[in-house]
Amino acid sequence: MTEHEEPPTDDPRPDGLRRATSLVVVNTGNGKGKSTAAFGVMIRGVARGWRVAVLQFIKSGDWKVGEEQIGRQLGVEWQALGAGFTWDSGNLEQDKATARDAWAIARGIIEAGEHQLVILDELTYLMTWGWIDSGEVIDVIRNRPPHVNLVITGRDAPAALIEVADTVTEMRQIKHAYESGIAAKKGIDY
Amino acid sequence: MTEHEEPPTDDPRPDGLRRATSLVVVNTGNGKGKSTAAFGVMIRGVARGWRVAVLQFIKSGDWKVGEEQIGRQLGVEWQALGAGFTWDSGNLEQDKATARDAWAIARGIIEAGEHQLVILDELTYLMTWGWIDSGEVIDVIRNRPPHVNLVITGRDAPAALIEVADTVTEMRQIKHAYESGIAAKKGIDY
Repeated sequence: MTEHEEPPTDDPRPDGLRRATSLVVVNTGNGKGKSTAAFGVMIRGVARGWRVAVLQFIKSGDWKVGEEQIGRQLGVEWQALGAGFTWDSGNLEQDKATARDAWAIARGIIEAGEHQLVILDELTYLMTWGWIDSGEVIDVIRNRPPHVNLVITGRDAPAALIEVADTVTEMRQIKHAYESGIAAKKGIDY
Repeated sequence: MTEHEEPPTDDPRPDGLRRATSLVVVNTGNGKGKSTAAFGVMIRGVARGWRVAVLQFIKSGDWKVGEEQIGRQLGVEWQALGAGFTWDSGNLEQDKATARDAWAIARGIIEAGEHQLVILDELTYLMTWGWIDSGEVIDVIRNRPPHVNLVITGRDAPAALIEVADTVTEMRQIKHAYESGIAAKKGIDY
Protein backbone atom coordinates (compact mmCIF):
# COMPACT_ATOMS: atom_id res chain seq x y z
CA MET A 1 0.00 0.00 0.00
CA THR A 2 1.27 3.46 -0.81
CA GLU A 3 0.74 6.35 1.56
CA HIS A 4 -2.05 7.80 -0.52
CA GLU A 5 -4.44 4.95 -1.10
CA GLU A 6 -5.95 5.22 2.32
CA PRO A 7 -8.89 7.62 2.74
CA PRO A 8 -8.21 10.35 5.25
CA THR A 9 -11.61 10.40 6.90
CA ASP A 10 -14.43 8.10 7.87
CA ASP A 11 -16.30 9.27 4.86
CA PRO A 12 -14.46 10.34 1.75
CA ARG A 13 -16.70 10.78 -1.23
CA PRO A 14 -16.59 12.47 -4.60
CA ASP A 15 -17.71 16.02 -5.21
CA GLY A 16 -20.82 16.81 -7.19
CA LEU A 17 -23.23 14.51 -5.40
CA ARG A 18 -26.79 15.62 -4.78
CA ARG A 19 -27.76 17.00 -1.40
CA ALA A 20 -30.36 15.09 0.56
CA THR A 21 -32.76 17.20 2.60
CA SER A 22 -32.34 14.69 5.40
CA LEU A 23 -30.78 11.31 6.10
CA VAL A 24 -31.69 8.12 7.90
CA VAL A 25 -28.70 6.55 9.65
CA VAL A 26 -28.81 3.10 11.27
CA ASN A 27 -26.19 1.79 13.70
CA THR A 28 -26.61 -1.92 14.26
CA GLY A 29 -24.54 -5.02 15.08
CA ASN A 30 -23.44 -6.81 18.24
CA GLY A 31 -20.52 -4.52 19.06
CA LYS A 32 -20.16 -1.38 21.10
CA GLY A 33 -20.53 2.10 19.70
CA LYS A 34 -24.04 2.05 18.24
CA SER A 35 -25.53 4.48 20.73
CA THR A 36 -22.19 6.14 21.35
CA ALA A 37 -21.88 7.11 17.70
CA ALA A 38 -25.49 8.32 17.74
CA PHE A 39 -24.58 10.66 20.57
CA GLY A 40 -21.61 11.82 18.51
CA VAL A 41 -24.07 12.80 15.77
CA MET A 42 -26.14 14.53 18.46
CA ILE A 43 -23.12 16.76 19.08
CA ARG A 44 -22.86 17.56 15.39
CA GLY A 45 -26.52 18.52 15.20
CA VAL A 46 -26.20 20.74 18.25
CA ALA A 47 -23.08 22.35 16.79
CA ARG A 48 -25.10 23.25 13.68
CA GLY A 49 -27.80 24.90 15.77
CA TRP A 50 -30.38 22.17 15.20
CA ARG A 51 -33.18 21.20 17.49
CA VAL A 52 -32.30 17.68 18.55
CA ALA A 53 -34.41 15.06 20.34
CA VAL A 54 -33.09 11.83 21.85
CA LEU A 55 -35.72 9.18 22.49
CA GLN A 56 -34.60 6.15 24.46
CA PHE A 57 -36.68 3.03 23.94
CA ILE A 58 -34.98 0.82 26.48
CA LYS A 59 -34.56 1.65 30.13
CA SER A 60 -30.88 2.34 30.50
CA GLY A 61 -30.36 2.47 34.26
CA ASP A 62 -26.86 3.73 34.98
CA TRP A 63 -26.02 3.73 31.28
CA LYS A 64 -26.16 6.93 29.27
CA VAL A 65 -26.41 9.08 32.37
CA GLY A 66 -23.46 11.16 31.20
CA GLU A 67 -24.80 11.52 27.68
CA GLU A 68 -28.16 12.63 29.05
CA GLN A 69 -26.55 15.16 31.38
CA ILE A 70 -24.40 16.70 28.64
CA GLY A 71 -27.22 16.45 26.09
CA ARG A 72 -29.59 18.40 28.32
CA GLN A 73 -26.83 20.88 29.08
CA LEU A 74 -26.52 21.43 25.31
CA GLY A 75 -30.27 21.94 24.91
CA VAL A 76 -31.17 18.50 23.60
CA GLU A 77 -34.67 17.30 24.35
CA TRP A 78 -34.14 13.96 26.05
CA GLN A 79 -36.94 11.49 26.73
CA ALA A 80 -36.60 8.07 28.32
CA LEU A 81 -39.63 6.53 26.67
CA GLY A 82 -38.65 3.08 27.82
CA ALA A 83 -38.46 4.11 31.47
CA GLY A 84 -41.75 2.42 32.20
CA PHE A 85 -40.92 -1.02 30.88
CA THR A 86 -38.14 -3.48 31.39
CA TRP A 87 -37.10 -6.51 29.39
CA ASP A 88 -37.43 -8.77 32.39
CA SER A 89 -40.84 -7.60 33.49
CA GLY A 90 -43.22 -10.27 34.65
CA ASN A 91 -45.99 -8.61 32.68
CA LEU A 92 -45.36 -8.95 28.99
CA GLU A 93 -48.66 -7.45 27.87
CA GLN A 94 -48.02 -4.35 29.93
CA ASP A 95 -44.53 -4.03 28.43
CA LYS A 96 -45.95 -4.30 24.93
CA ALA A 97 -48.54 -1.63 25.69
CA THR A 98 -45.80 0.67 27.02
CA ALA A 99 -43.74 0.00 23.91
CA ARG A 100 -46.66 0.95 21.69
CA ASP A 101 -47.22 4.13 23.69
CA ALA A 102 -43.51 4.97 23.43
CA TRP A 103 -43.59 4.53 19.67
CA ALA A 104 -46.73 6.69 19.43
CA ILE A 105 -44.87 9.50 21.19
CA ALA A 106 -41.87 9.08 18.90
CA ARG A 107 -44.09 9.08 15.84
CA GLY A 108 -45.71 12.32 17.00
CA ILE A 109 -42.31 13.96 17.49
CA ILE A 110 -41.09 12.86 14.05
CA GLU A 111 -44.28 13.95 12.30
CA ALA A 112 -44.42 17.31 14.11
CA GLY A 113 -41.22 18.21 12.28
CA GLU A 114 -39.97 20.52 15.03
CA HIS A 115 -36.58 18.80 15.26
CA GLN A 116 -33.95 18.53 12.54
CA LEU A 117 -32.55 15.45 14.25
CA VAL A 118 -34.38 12.73 16.14
CA ILE A 119 -32.34 9.90 17.64
CA LEU A 120 -34.36 6.73 18.20
CA ASP A 121 -32.06 4.87 20.56
CA GLU A 122 -32.53 1.08 20.63
CA LEU A 123 -35.73 1.19 18.61
CA THR A 124 -34.77 -1.96 16.69
CA TYR A 125 -35.53 -4.24 19.63
CA LEU A 126 -39.18 -3.21 19.71
CA MET A 127 -39.39 -4.01 16.00
CA THR A 128 -37.57 -7.33 16.28
CA TRP A 129 -39.64 -8.43 19.23
CA GLY A 130 -42.81 -7.58 17.37
CA TRP A 131 -43.93 -5.19 20.10
CA ILE A 132 -44.63 -2.45 17.59
CA ASP A 133 -45.77 -2.59 13.97
CA SER A 134 -42.59 -2.51 11.87
CA GLY A 135 -44.54 -1.64 8.74
CA GLU A 136 -45.87 1.45 10.45
CA VAL A 137 -42.38 2.42 11.59
CA ILE A 138 -41.08 2.15 8.02
CA ASP A 139 -44.02 4.21 6.70
CA VAL A 140 -43.42 6.95 9.26
CA ILE A 141 -39.72 7.04 8.35
CA ARG A 142 -40.46 7.13 4.63
CA ASN A 143 -43.14 9.84 4.93
CA ARG A 144 -41.44 11.98 7.55
CA PRO A 145 -41.15 15.75 7.08
CA PRO A 146 -38.29 16.11 4.60
CA HIS A 147 -35.98 18.05 6.93
CA VAL A 148 -36.11 15.52 9.78
CA ASN A 149 -32.92 13.45 10.05
CA LEU A 150 -33.14 10.18 11.95
CA VAL A 151 -30.53 8.06 13.69
CA ILE A 152 -31.75 4.65 14.78
CA THR A 153 -29.73 2.24 16.92
CA GLY A 154 -29.97 -1.34 18.14
CA ARG A 155 -28.94 -4.87 17.24
CA ASP A 156 -30.51 -6.89 14.47
CA ALA A 157 -31.88 -4.03 12.40
CA PRO A 158 -34.74 -5.52 10.33
CA ALA A 159 -34.20 -5.75 6.57
CA ALA A 160 -36.94 -3.21 5.86
CA LEU A 161 -35.23 -0.68 8.11
CA ILE A 162 -31.91 -1.21 6.35
CA GLU A 163 -33.75 -0.79 3.05
CA VAL A 164 -35.23 2.60 4.00
CA ALA A 165 -31.98 3.88 5.56
CA ASP A 166 -29.38 5.93 3.70
CA THR A 167 -26.38 4.81 5.73
CA VAL A 168 -26.11 1.63 7.77
CA THR A 169 -23.11 0.62 9.84
CA GLU A 170 -22.67 -2.68 11.59
CA MET A 171 -20.69 -2.35 14.81
CA ARG A 172 -19.00 -5.72 15.03
CA GLN A 173 -17.38 -6.90 18.23
CA ILE A 174 -13.77 -7.94 17.65
CA LYS A 175 -12.69 -7.97 21.26
CA HIS A 176 -14.46 -6.98 24.44
CA ALA A 177 -13.01 -6.09 27.83
CA TYR A 178 -15.48 -8.35 29.60
CA GLU A 179 -13.94 -11.36 27.90
CA SER A 180 -10.89 -10.55 30.00
CA GLY A 181 -13.06 -10.26 33.10
CA ILE A 182 -13.05 -6.47 33.16
CA ALA A 183 -16.12 -4.63 34.42
CA ALA A 184 -17.75 -1.73 32.60
CA LYS A 185 -15.90 1.48 33.34
CA LYS A 186 -17.58 4.72 34.26
CA GLY A 187 -16.48 7.48 31.88
CA ILE A 188 -15.73 5.04 29.08
CA ASP A 189 -18.58 2.56 28.87
CA TYR A 190 -21.18 4.78 30.51
CA MET B 1 -36.47 -15.52 19.78
CA THR B 2 -38.29 -14.73 23.00
CA GLU B 3 -38.59 -11.21 24.28
CA HIS B 4 -35.96 -11.69 26.93
CA GLU B 5 -33.00 -13.17 25.11
CA GLU B 6 -31.94 -9.87 23.64
CA PRO B 7 -29.52 -7.78 25.68
CA PRO B 8 -30.91 -4.42 26.65
CA THR B 9 -27.79 -2.35 26.14
CA ASP B 10 -24.72 -2.17 23.97
CA ASP B 11 -22.79 -3.76 26.72
CA PRO B 12 -24.50 -6.14 29.08
CA ARG B 13 -22.09 -8.03 31.23
CA PRO B 14 -22.14 -10.07 34.39
CA ASP B 15 -21.64 -8.57 37.83
CA GLY B 16 -18.55 -9.30 39.87
CA LEU B 17 -15.93 -8.54 37.25
CA ARG B 18 -12.72 -6.82 38.22
CA ARG B 19 -12.39 -3.10 37.70
CA ALA B 20 -9.68 -1.92 35.34
CA THR B 21 -7.91 1.28 36.31
CA SER B 22 -8.16 2.31 32.67
CA LEU B 23 -9.14 0.91 29.30
CA VAL B 24 -7.84 0.98 25.75
CA VAL B 25 -10.66 1.12 23.20
CA VAL B 26 -10.06 0.76 19.44
CA ASN B 27 -12.66 1.68 16.79
CA THR B 28 -11.61 0.36 13.39
CA GLY B 29 -13.15 -0.89 10.13
CA ASN B 30 -14.22 0.67 6.84
CA GLY B 31 -17.58 2.01 8.04
CA LYS B 32 -18.70 5.25 9.58
CA GLY B 33 -18.84 5.88 13.30
CA LYS B 34 -15.24 5.27 14.38
CA SER B 35 -14.49 8.87 15.27
CA THR B 36 -18.13 9.62 16.01
CA ALA B 37 -18.24 6.96 18.72
CA ALA B 38 -14.93 8.27 20.09
CA PHE B 39 -16.54 11.67 20.48
CA GLY B 40 -19.44 9.98 22.23
CA VAL B 41 -16.94 8.61 24.76
CA MET B 42 -15.49 12.13 25.01
CA ILE B 43 -18.94 13.23 26.27
CA ARG B 44 -18.95 10.46 28.85
CA GLY B 45 -15.54 11.47 30.14
CA VAL B 46 -16.56 15.11 30.36
CA ALA B 47 -19.75 14.11 32.17
CA ARG B 48 -17.64 12.31 34.79
CA GLY B 49 -15.52 15.38 35.34
CA TRP B 50 -12.44 13.99 33.62
CA ARG B 51 -9.74 15.96 31.90
CA VAL B 52 -10.06 14.90 28.26
CA ALA B 53 -7.70 15.48 25.32
CA VAL B 54 -8.56 14.88 21.67
CA LEU B 55 -5.56 14.56 19.37
CA GLN B 56 -6.30 14.49 15.65
CA PHE B 57 -3.65 12.85 13.52
CA ILE B 58 -5.16 13.57 10.14
CA LYS B 59 -6.09 17.00 8.87
CA SER B 60 -9.86 16.98 8.88
CA GLY B 61 -10.76 20.12 6.93
CA ASP B 62 -14.49 20.75 7.28
CA TRP B 63 -14.93 17.48 9.13
CA LYS B 64 -15.17 17.42 12.89
CA VAL B 65 -15.66 21.17 13.11
CA GLY B 66 -18.80 20.71 15.17
CA GLU B 67 -17.20 18.15 17.46
CA GLU B 68 -14.26 20.45 18.04
CA GLN B 69 -16.52 23.42 18.79
CA ILE B 70 -18.64 21.50 21.30
CA GLY B 71 -15.58 19.74 22.72
CA ARG B 72 -13.84 23.02 23.43
CA GLN B 73 -17.07 24.42 24.84
CA LEU B 74 -17.10 21.47 27.26
CA GLY B 75 -13.48 22.07 28.30
CA VAL B 76 -11.84 19.38 26.17
CA GLU B 77 -8.26 20.03 25.14
CA TRP B 78 -8.34 19.69 21.36
CA GLN B 79 -5.21 19.52 19.21
CA ALA B 80 -5.09 19.06 15.45
CA LEU B 81 -1.66 17.45 15.35
CA GLY B 82 -2.09 16.52 11.72
CA ALA B 83 -2.83 20.08 10.65
CA GLY B 84 0.62 20.46 9.19
CA PHE B 85 0.60 17.46 6.90
CA THR B 86 -1.73 16.15 4.25
CA TRP B 87 -1.97 12.75 2.64
CA ASP B 88 -1.54 14.25 -0.81
CA SER B 89 1.47 16.37 -0.05
CA GLY B 90 4.18 16.43 -2.67
CA ASN B 91 6.76 16.07 0.06
CA LEU B 92 6.57 12.65 1.65
CA GLU B 93 9.63 13.07 3.85
CA GLN B 94 8.22 16.24 5.32
CA ASP B 95 4.90 14.52 6.01
CA LYS B 96 6.69 11.66 7.77
CA ALA B 97 8.65 14.13 9.90
CA THR B 98 5.42 15.92 10.84
CA ALA B 99 3.83 12.59 11.71
CA ARG B 100 6.74 11.71 13.99
CA ASP B 101 6.49 15.12 15.67
CA ALA B 102 2.74 14.65 16.12
CA TRP B 103 3.27 11.27 17.74
CA ALA B 104 5.97 12.71 20.02
CA ILE B 105 3.46 15.29 21.27
CA ALA B 106 0.83 12.60 21.80
CA ARG B 107 3.32 10.42 23.65
CA GLY B 108 4.18 13.33 25.93
CA ILE B 109 0.50 13.94 26.72
CA ILE B 110 -0.13 10.27 27.48
CA GLU B 111 2.97 9.92 29.66
CA ALA B 112 2.29 13.17 31.53
CA GLY B 113 -0.82 11.51 32.94
CA GLU B 114 -2.73 14.75 33.31
CA HIS B 115 -5.76 13.47 31.40
CA GLN B 116 -8.00 10.56 32.34
CA LEU B 117 -8.97 10.20 28.69
CA VAL B 118 -6.88 10.74 25.58
CA ILE B 119 -8.52 10.22 22.19
CA LEU B 120 -6.02 9.46 19.41
CA ASP B 121 -8.17 10.11 16.38
CA GLU B 122 -7.01 8.33 13.19
CA LEU B 123 -3.71 7.25 14.69
CA THR B 124 -3.86 3.87 12.94
CA TYR B 125 -2.99 5.35 9.53
CA LEU B 126 0.37 6.60 10.75
CA MET B 127 1.10 3.11 12.05
CA THR B 128 -0.10 1.33 8.91
CA TRP B 129 1.83 3.64 6.64
CA GLY B 130 4.98 3.07 8.69
CA TRP B 131 5.34 6.78 9.35
CA ILE B 132 5.77 6.19 13.08
CA ASP B 133 7.27 3.26 14.98
CA SER B 134 4.36 0.97 15.82
CA GLY B 135 6.44 -0.90 18.40
CA GLU B 136 7.00 2.35 20.25
CA VAL B 137 3.28 3.16 20.11
CA ILE B 138 2.43 -0.21 21.63
CA ASP B 139 5.07 0.24 24.36
CA VAL B 140 3.71 3.67 25.25
CA ILE B 141 0.17 2.27 25.44
CA ARG B 142 1.26 -0.68 27.55
CA ASN B 143 3.35 1.43 29.94
CA ARG B 144 1.02 4.42 30.20
CA PRO B 145 0.09 5.85 33.60
CA PRO B 146 -2.50 3.42 34.92
CA HIS B 147 -5.36 5.94 35.09
CA VAL B 148 -5.05 7.11 31.47
CA ASN B 149 -7.81 5.72 29.25
CA LEU B 150 -7.20 5.69 25.52
CA VAL B 151 -9.56 5.63 22.54
CA ILE B 152 -7.84 5.04 19.20
CA THR B 153 -9.59 5.27 15.84
CA GLY B 154 -8.82 4.54 12.20
CA ARG B 155 -9.09 1.81 9.59
CA ASP B 156 -6.90 -1.28 9.50
CA ALA B 157 -5.88 -1.32 13.14
CA PRO B 158 -2.62 -3.29 13.28
CA ALA B 159 -2.72 -6.68 15.03
CA ALA B 160 -0.41 -5.49 17.81
CA LEU B 161 -2.80 -2.64 18.58
CA ILE B 162 -5.75 -5.00 18.73
CA GLU B 163 -3.69 -7.23 21.00
CA VAL B 164 -2.97 -4.45 23.50
CA ALA B 165 -6.53 -3.08 23.45
CA ASP B 166 -9.27 -4.09 25.88
CA THR B 167 -12.21 -3.48 23.56
CA VAL B 168 -12.10 -3.42 19.77
CA THR B 169 -15.05 -2.71 17.52
CA GLU B 170 -15.06 -2.99 13.76
CA MET B 171 -17.38 -0.46 12.14
CA ARG B 172 -18.44 -2.28 9.00
CA GLN B 173 -20.13 -0.47 6.16
CA ILE B 174 -23.42 -2.14 5.23
CA LYS B 175 -24.84 0.70 3.19
CA HIS B 176 -23.62 4.21 2.53
CA ALA B 177 -25.56 7.26 1.33
CA TYR B 178 -22.92 8.05 -1.26
CA GLU B 179 -23.70 4.82 -3.06
CA SER B 180 -27.06 6.44 -3.79
CA GLY B 181 -25.32 9.59 -4.95
CA ILE B 182 -26.01 11.56 -1.79
CA ALA B 183 -23.47 14.11 -0.60
CA ALA B 184 -22.22 14.34 2.96
CA LYS B 185 -24.68 16.24 5.12
CA LYS B 186 -23.72 18.96 7.54
CA GLY B 187 -25.05 18.15 11.01
CA ILE B 188 -25.04 14.42 10.36
CA ASP B 189 -21.79 13.52 8.65
CA TYR B 190 -19.80 16.50 9.91
